[in-house]
Order: sequence, then structure tokens, then C-alpha cells
Amino acid sequence: MKNRIITIKDIAKALGISASTVSRALKDHPDIAPETKKQVNELAKKLNYRPNPIALSLRNQRSNIVAVIVPEIVHHFFSSVISGIETAAERHNLQVLISQSFESYEREKLHCEIFKNSFIEGIIMSVSKETQNQEHIQALIDTGIPVIFFDRIIDGMNIDQIVINDNEGAFMATQHLVDQGCRKIVHLAGPSTRQISINRTNGYKRAIQEAGLTLDEKLIIECDTYEKAQSTIDKLLKSSTSFDGIFAVNDLTAIGAMNRLLAEKISIPEQIAIVGFGNDPVAEMVNPSLTSINQPGREMGEKAMEMFLNRIENGDNAPFQKITLDTNLIVRQSSMRH
Amino acid sequence: MKNRIITIKDIAKALGISASTVSRALKDHPDIAPETKKQVNELAKKLNYRPNPIALSLRNQRSNIVAVIVPEIVHHFFSSVISGIETAAERHNLQVLISQSFESYEREKLHCEIFKNSFIEGIIMSVSKETQNQEHIQALIDTGIPVIFFDRIIDGMNIDQIVINDNEGAFMATQHLVDQGCRKIVHLAGPSTRQISINRTNGYKRAIQEAGLTLDEKLIIECDTYEKAQSTIDKLLKSSTSFDGIFAVNDLTAIGAMNRLLAEKISIPEQIAIVGFGNDPVAEMVNPSLTSINQPGREMGEKAMEMFLNRIENGDNAPFQKITLDTNLIVRQSSMRH
Repeated sequence: MKNRIITIKDIAKALGISASTVSRALKDHPDIAPETKKQVNELAKKLNYRPNPIALSLRNQRSNIVAVIVPEIVHHFFSSVISGIETAAERHNLQVLISQSFESYEREKLHCEIFKNSFIEGIIMSVSKETQNQEHIQALIDTGIPVIFFDRIIDGMNIDQIVINDNEGAFMATQHLVDQGCRKIVHLAGPSTRQISINRTNGYKRAIQEAGLTLDEKLIIECDTYEKAQSTIDKLLKSSTSFDGIFAVNDLTAIGAMNRLLAEKISIPEQIAIVGFGNDPVAEMVNPSLTSINQPGREMGEKAMEMFLNRIENGDNAPFQKITLDTNLIVRQSSMRH
Repeated sequence: MKNRIITIKDIAKALGISASTVSRALKDHPDIAPETKKQVNELAKKLNYRPNPIALSLRNQRSNIVAVIVPEIVHHFFSSVISGIETAAERHNLQVLISQSFESYEREKLHCEIFKNSFIEGIIMSVSKETQNQEHIQALIDTGIPVIFFDRIIDGMNIDQIVINDNEGAFMATQHLVDQGCRKIVHLAGPSTRQISINRTNGYKRAIQEAGLTLDEKLIIECDTYEKAQSTIDKLLKSSTSFDGIFAVNDLTAIGAMNRLLAEKISIPEQIAIVGFGNDPVAEMVNPSLTSINQPGREMGEKAMEMFLNRIENGDNAPFQKITLDTNLIVRQSSMRH
């Protein structure tokens, strides 16, 4: 058994005063008598008391609340990760509070600040599109609040993180289109400022090259919403660019493209085969149903919670973990030519 | 100008001690000297200090945080109400924390308890399917935490609330099917334990009767998910029940039914016309696109936040408000026969 960590409670018990008095004495609070402060500080020194905030939260002031910060709950992927977090949380008797950044760095920072000054045990988060800076997150860690990143991370930060293998997922999606006979595959891509989009685009490029096809940069178009997909397809059809497959960065974009093509009496998958990314429930509901790359959102949430519990248990000393989850291809009607 | 309310800060200032000492003295906290307690209590009495928690939270300990409790964020309706709440919150410099009951009364109660002991300014909530009891909510109100109900309310509680006119929405949906020539309309209904489902079923019945059609209870079937709709349609087709229209309690159920019928080569809307409820974004994406009743989720969220701000401003004295929002019919391909 490890040496027991000395806590505020131990000091309080030894001196016969309350833990909150010890806590305030250590912080030099004006309400506490100088004599009490002296006693507390001397005993703290003698017992080699070290204010380890994680240990403290575990031992003295457990709120059993974990905060989650996500860009937007309206995206099915984020709400499914949250479901996974909540499932694991319930097993450990923890409660989950959710806040949204709405893709704004300022709101994300504000939420971090609120949580820094609150009673939560830790934060599991996915950063906003705008977030470049890591100071607001470092400030949490410095306060002793463990932070776990999922899906959207800040590159180069020394922190526990769990991500999807986006490059491999995009590679599988594109390779599947090649297998179905597609030779000119359009990639509807996410913004090139986001690491996830870059990884998916790189996976697409890798599959095109490994298949011995010509990589045509004109076929890579930044377009990542249902609405944009409709106008992008309109432009492509008018420009008489020839293409026989589409790999879209997410499912809604794929469906937007598909519906526009169907309205023009282009047959799916015979003339143009389509693959999305994310395996949103809607992929199964549209007609033809949409082939997609399944991201294990719930699994990601459950694993993120396990990483959090490990961090709480082991403190700052344990090495940081990086977990990468694999995706899988779900073939449906939109690409099934054979 | 109204008389200023006496706060803990006023007492603290007058006695030259900290507000937290006053607060703890009033609570008879063991760390505070008896002499201090006596001074504080005497002055409090003299100044006619009354611990009005709403006023206190406004004046002394504003956290600027509002909590939202919903059954599940994965439902588009709830996440769109939350978007509305967040939009209004941002205008007033408030932050929003979200928690999910997952349709469990126990979890809802636990979240209420956590919030009761926390720093939040109030709660905007929609109750779980299981919730029958109102004690956990009354306990919040008694603590001085204002609670606003949206969408799913507890009938008979004296509380600010904002709901959808479900009966009228269902009436419009059914009447539209009648107008399209439907004479035998199946209603895929929600559980008869929930007020919302009852209201929708009543709206359906009213439209059937006003149209002079025969109300056939066998055509009202409890079925409210995408998966259940598929098996329900299978059974209906096998039973050779004749029907020419479907009004479903929500959009996913309508789409489940539609996809099953399409798989059986039944033409929509020619043979069977379909209307959903909720106007989920997916209604526009499926093929044929789904006619639905639009619920103003964002508007509901914004208005709920306004009700909350009114309550904070006026305290317990203002009469409770009940707002009912109208729905509107969005006609799409699944029902458009003419």
C-alpha cells in the first residue's frame, strides 16, 4: 500500500478544529486568528502536507461532478460521446454537467474560467473551431483540475487525449469508392484550418495515390454542410466537371449532395456513388441509404471517462495517454454497385 | 426607487467584517465566535434583514449561471430549445449548464439536489417521462431558486411554464390528411402516460370527428420510435387493415413507417400520405421529404429565458405565467397529393 497522503482533514483532526478553518488558515484568510494560522502551518510543515488539489478533491471536497465542454450538442457525434461519458459516469456515481462553446474560443474560455472557480472534479472537452491558444486549459491544469481531450485536441499539448483515426477512416471510404469502380472522386472537405479535416483529406489523397489514380486538386472542394453541398453540386454540374464518386467529410454534406443529384435525375449509386463520414442515424433513414464511416462516439465517451478516472487516481505523476480509436465502413445503398 | 433590500454585505460593512463571516454567523457556524454571532444577529434584526435568496443571488453572489435539465440532448427538439436558451442567455451575459435526466426520475431528482446546493441562479427544465412527483422541484423553489418549465410540465403546479399547443398541431396534421383525401388515418401515438402524447392524440380525434369520419380506436397504435414503426407497419400490412394515411407523434416514427412502406413498393403519398410532428431537420432530407408540424424550439428556449429573467426581477410576488406557442404545418412530398 502506498503512503497515505496527508490531507486538510488530518490536520483538522489533529488540532481539533474544522477542515474549513484549516483550509482558510493555509490561505491566510483574514477571519482566522493568527494563533490558529501559526498552529496549522507548523503542523502542515511537520506532516509534510502538500496541497495536491486532485487528492484534495478526492478526499475532502468530492462533488462527484464532471464537466463536459463541447462545440455543439446538436451534432449527433457530440451527443453520442456525451451519452458514453454519462454511461461510464453513472457506473462510478458521477454526475455530468454539459456546456457548449458554440465554436467560439471566447465562450470556451469563459466556461473554463467558471469551472476553474467551481466545485467540479475535472473536465472532458473537445475544443472549438476557433481555439488555437492553450492558456485557458493550462490554467485549469495548474489549478489541479484534470482535463481530458476528445476528438478535437490542441496539437502538441501534454494531456490525456482520445481521438478517432480520421486519416484511416477517410482512406477506407475512398478505397471503397475505388473498389466500386469510381475513378474521378470528388472530396467535399472540411475547413483546412482544422486538424480533423486535414487528416480526412490526407486519407483521401493517400487512397487515390495508392490506387494509382491521378490526384486532381480541383476535385477537393471545401464544403461541409447540407446547404453548401447543394450549391457546390450545382456548380460542379454547370462546370461540366466529370466525376463518378463523392467522399464527403460528414454525413449531412453527403446527403445534401445526394439529394441535389437525385433532383437532377442522376442515379445513385449507378452514375455517382457516395460515401459520408460519421454514421449519423440519418444515414440509415435517407433513400437510398448512405454508406458511411462509423465513428465510435459512445465508446469514445466511455473511454474518455476511464482516462479521467485514471488521472484522478494516479495524479500528475502518471504518463499522459493518447488513445486512437478505429473506425469502420458501413456499406449501404448509396455506394453499393455490385 | 424601491426601498433597497438589506443584504449580508450591508451587515458586513457596518460591522467591519467579511460577508462570508456574516453568512456563517447567521447559519450558526461553529468556526465563528459567539460574540460575532451575537453582533451579527442583533444588527440583522435591527436592519430588518430578510434572507431573500433570489435577491441575495442577484446582489451578493451572482454566478450568472442558469441550469437546464432535459430528458435527452440527442433529441433535436431539446437541443434546439437549448440553443434558444443560450441565445437569450448570451444577450444577458448568462452562462448555461446542461444536465440530462435520461428520462429517469431518480437522475432528475439528483440533478435538482446538486443544483439546490450549488451557485446557480435558476433552472429551466422539462421533466422526465417517469416524473409524477413534484417534491424535488418544490424543494428548489422553497430554497429560492426559480424554476421555469418548458414543454413537459407537471400538471397543476403553480409555476412559470411554456408549452406547445400539441392538440392544435395534431389537429392540423390530421385535417391536412383529410384534405388530401385520406379517410382511414392511422395514428402512431406516444405513451398514454404522457400529457403531450394525450394532447396530440386528442387533436387527432378532434380532427377525425370534425371531418365527420368514424373514429376507429384500432387505428390508434402506441408506437413512437423509428424501429417500432417498422414492426408496427409490418403487422398492419399482415393484418390487412386498410388505411390511406398516417399521422405519427414524431418525425422519426413517421420516417420509420415511410421507409417500411416504400420497401413494400407502396407509393407515398399516392397510396398512403404521411405527416410527422416536430419538423426535425431530417424531415427535409428524406426522400420523399416529410410533411411535419413545426414546433418553435428556439423560440420556446428564448421565451423561457425571458420568463426566467422576469421571475428573477419580480421575485415571488409576480403572478405565474403560462405561455402556449402555436405550431405550423410544413407541407412536403410525403402528403402532397394535389
